[in-house]
Amino acid sequence: MAELKELTPRSVDYSQWYQDLVIKADMAENSAVRGCMVIKPYGYAIWEKMQAELDRMFKETGHQNAYFPLFIPKSFLSKEAAHVEGFAKECAVVTHYRLKADSEGKGVVVDPAAKLEEELIVRPTSETIIWSTYKNWIQSYRDLPLLINQWANVVRWEMRTRLFLRTAEFLWQEGHTAHATESEALAETKQMLEVYASFAENFMAMPVVKGVKSPNERFAGAVETFCIEGLMQDGKALQAGTSHFLGQNFAKAFDVTFATKEGNRDYVWATSWGVSTRLIGALIMCHSDDNGLVLPPKLAPYQVVIVPIYRSEEQLAQIDGKVAEIVRKLRALGVSVKYDNNDNKKPGWKFAEYELKGVPVRLALGARDLDNGTIEIARRDTLTKETRSIENIEAYVKALLDEIQDNIYQKAFNFRTSVTRTVDSYEEFKVEIEKGGFLLAHWDGTPETEELIKAETKATIRCIPLEGDKTPGKCMVTGKPSAQRVYFARAY
Amino acid sequence: MAELKELTPRSVDYSQWYQDLVIKADMAENSAVRGCMVIKPYGYAIWEKMQAELDRMFKETGHQNAYFPLFIPKSFLSKEAAHVEGFAKECAVVTHYRLKADSEGKGVVVDPAAKLEEELIVRPTSETIIWSTYKNWIQSYRDLPLLINQWANVVRWEMRTRLFLRTAEFLWQEGHTAHATESEALAETKQMLEVYASFAENFMAMPVVKGVKSPNERFAGAVETFCIEGLMQDGKALQAGTSHFLGQNFAKAFDVTFATKEGNRDYVWATSWGVSTRLIGALIMCHSDDNGLVLPPKLAPYQVVIVPIYRSEEQLAQIDGKVAEIVRKLRALGVSVKYDNNDNKKPGWKFAEYELKGVPVRLALGARDLDNGTIEIARRDTLTKETRSIENIEAYVKALLDEIQDNIYQKAFNFRTSVTRTVDSYEEFKVEIEKGGFLLAHWDGTPETEELIKAETKATIRCIPLEGDKTPGKCMVTGKPSAQRVYFARAY
Ligand SMILES: [Zn+2]
Ligand SMILES: [Zn+2]
Repeated sequence: MAELKELTPRSVDYSQWYQDLVIKADMAENSAVRGCMVIKPYGYAIWEKMQAELDRMFKETGHQNAYFPLFIPKSFLSKEAAHVEGFAKECAVVTHYRLKADSEGKGVVVDPAAKLEEELIVRPTSETIIWSTYKNWIQSYRDLPLLINQWANVVRWEMRTRLFLRTAEFLWQEGHTAHATESEALAETKQMLEVYASFAENFMAMPVVKGVKSPNERFAGAVETFCIEGLMQDGKALQAGTSHFLGQNFAKAFDVTFATKEGNRDYVWATSWGVSTRLIGALIMCHSDDNGLVLPPKLAPYQVVIVPIYRSEEQLAQIDGKVAEIVRKLRALGVSVKYDNNDNKKPGWKFAEYELKGVPVRLALGARDLDNGTIEIARRDTLTKETRSIENIEAYVKALLDEIQDNIYQKAFNFRTSVTRTVDSYEEFKVEIEKGGFLLAHWDGTPETEELIKAETKATIRCIPLEGDKTPGKCMVTGKPSAQRVYFARAY
Repeated sequence: MAELKELTPRSVDYSQWYQDLVIKADMAENSAVRGCMVIKPYGYAIWEKMQAELDRMFKETGHQNAYFPLFIPKSFLSKEAAHVEGFAKECAVVTHYRLKADSEGKGVVVDPAAKLEEELIVRPTSETIIWSTYKNWIQSYRDLPLLINQWANVVRWEMRTRLFLRTAEFLWQEGHTAHATESEALAETKQMLEVYASFAENFMAMPVVKGVKSPNERFAGAVETFCIEGLMQDGKALQAGTSHFLGQNFAKAFDVTFATKEGNRDYVWATSWGVSTRLIGALIMCHSDDNGLVLPPKLAPYQVVIVPIYRSEEQLAQIDGKVAEIVRKLRALGVSVKYDNNDNKKPGWKFAEYELKGVPVRLALGARDLDNGTIEIARRDTLTKETRSIENIEAYVKALLDEIQDNIYQKAFNFRTSVTRTVDSYEEFKVEIEKGGFLLAHWDGTPETEELIKAETKATIRCIPLEGDKTPGKCMVTGKPSAQRVYFARAY
């Protein structure tokens, strides 16, 4: 591996390993604007893959895309009390709409004459602007349900940022739906949780726990927040997606009522749900190794790379011909493939580069292979390679990609299983939490106990799981009754 | 047609017709934020179609997508003198990053303690933030060309806004490329102009004139601006896309140099190019009529709608069965189709609704059709209908969609031809410009003459065309030499 590409090993400094990897694999970098990242083409290509799959899943469940304004009038944000409380501390605020030449001739300054009557907030999330709009769209039960999603950028002025995981600006999708009944809105909330879980497991190859947030961790303005939680290789949890049941909170804040079938008027029921470019951070931390990215084939910008090994132009021309055939056959099977016959780089450099970039399968073809009718296949997930007959190689590669997708998932699943433990006493909890992973423990359901645990151990309740053991017990801290065990972890 | 859906006729008030159409066809509406629009699902679906085709064309010409920050430090905007001059007057400026509870208990106020050291501008376009980033990406000729596109929202604080055509926030794509030589950058600029022209003509069915902007109309910071200009039904021109040759202006402003093959250092050559949601406005104004939208099949959210005509549940069940077969066959041919068997609306209401929404082909199937083996087909573009054998109807529809696409283009082309005239005297010009359309006239090449014409007639030079008659002549105003005729029009 080329020296320049070397990463800090995970065992030495996991956090530095992550930072090295994001930079060296050309995924993203910090910009000149504090806390805002530049998503580079390779990182953005993964986001495009994620978007395509999620968008298809949203449309299959009846949602349509739309677009709402970037700006939110300050007074809108204030209408739902818990909501403004949750977001006010991290808002980018637009106060003026014009610059003018500096009177001292030094560039431009804000024109004080162009002050907005009411400040505009750069959206941290769009519930308020959307519900102020829905008021005009919803008159009767015939206008419901309203099932809308938006792909957008949002801004939350975070003080401590990390590429993909926590940035001042990020890209996301936010679904905002309106329903005639509580039960329908709850069903939608849970449906979208299932969509997220299915995406995480089947595309990202990341097992997730589905659950409900404790009141402390609830979305500002929600009645109930559902979430999926992944576990990273360093034993820390990561919230990968949330789906909120908003009750009638936003309908009441914006006075959105509808004529029911029975001829009454009632407030509309709401949900909202989102995932963001944070998923790219989760993808990296869930699977990658000290050599670089490990990407699940279903989200890899290209699934296969082919590298020619040659000593002469003549050999290269022969290899080019053979590869063209393989590329055509792979593409016919729906496999994305890149052929790198760039003459400026040596095969060893290319091998390291594509390992760093996590390309799932690497094929190498040399002059001797042409003679023997063979080809070398390397797997990124296991770092193993073998030489095989070139006959029908495309079908073999296609099947191998499925196997890699499964293997990556299974590896992450096994890891998570190995670090998920049940603990019964707070003493044990304090020892075990230092080792990372998920701890399943009883909790009395109060914010006070949750806060105490957090203050003393830095662990938070990741969720009250929807599935698994529901046996009641006693809180490990207070001894008070507990309805079921909940997931604790330190988290991103 | 249902009364509620009626539009102001074009002949009565073209501008009101446009406004009515955008609102009643559920394309977009004004939001609570001055100048910002809400793009509704039907309008957004057209944008998604546009994006998909353009994105494919960009990738086929070697470009990759990436994402750069929403915010631009004020000092960056100032680095290129013409650029800041062009954009300073319409900038949304972020000055603070936090709100706090009002001391009088009335909502929230901007926290004066959270004032940014340097104000951030919400990007009106991204040359400055991108070239400040490219400085770190480009060291040598081996790093070039850099071919990047971004799909994003931008903000220009326009005082007079119109849905899609001119809004404070709009969605667009902006390509930003970096090259080792002037000729390569110029070739890229022209290539992207051709991509835009091809998209306009082959997908939007809108004929366009390709040309170069006069210095007065050039992009702020460009050496040369190329553009495509469409002609709307009211005789006004609309700039539909621009491709800028930026020379070394931004490389010099941000000190971006590279090691040449010959071992020297040189400033990098740049291009940028963009189209926006304005294209939706152009699409509407180019083809639609007093009954509503007319959409080219290649950009219609659905190309075919099927409406059942029935008197009983039993009849509907029979029709449902037959339609399911047609839908399957149409989809197998790649035709998008919606079956509207909603029982709450009458066929006449549906006919008017899909006419308003510009669905290219409408099929209607009744009980008698089932007996006769027939189906009714209506074309949106000609408003004609016919009853045909249902046998092999899907192939007929598929071919009809191609014919409609061609017909819409041809109609727009013929209209443009009919209102494009050559004029030789300024007196004639002043008379003719009142009738609308393009006027080809000689101009002496000076900004002074252009400004005089604009002040006296409200007509601007749309472009100096790349194709067509290049015979020199004498300026219609000053009599000075003119290199070739240029396109004049009043414009959006
Ligand atoms: Zn959770
Ligand atoms: Zn032009």
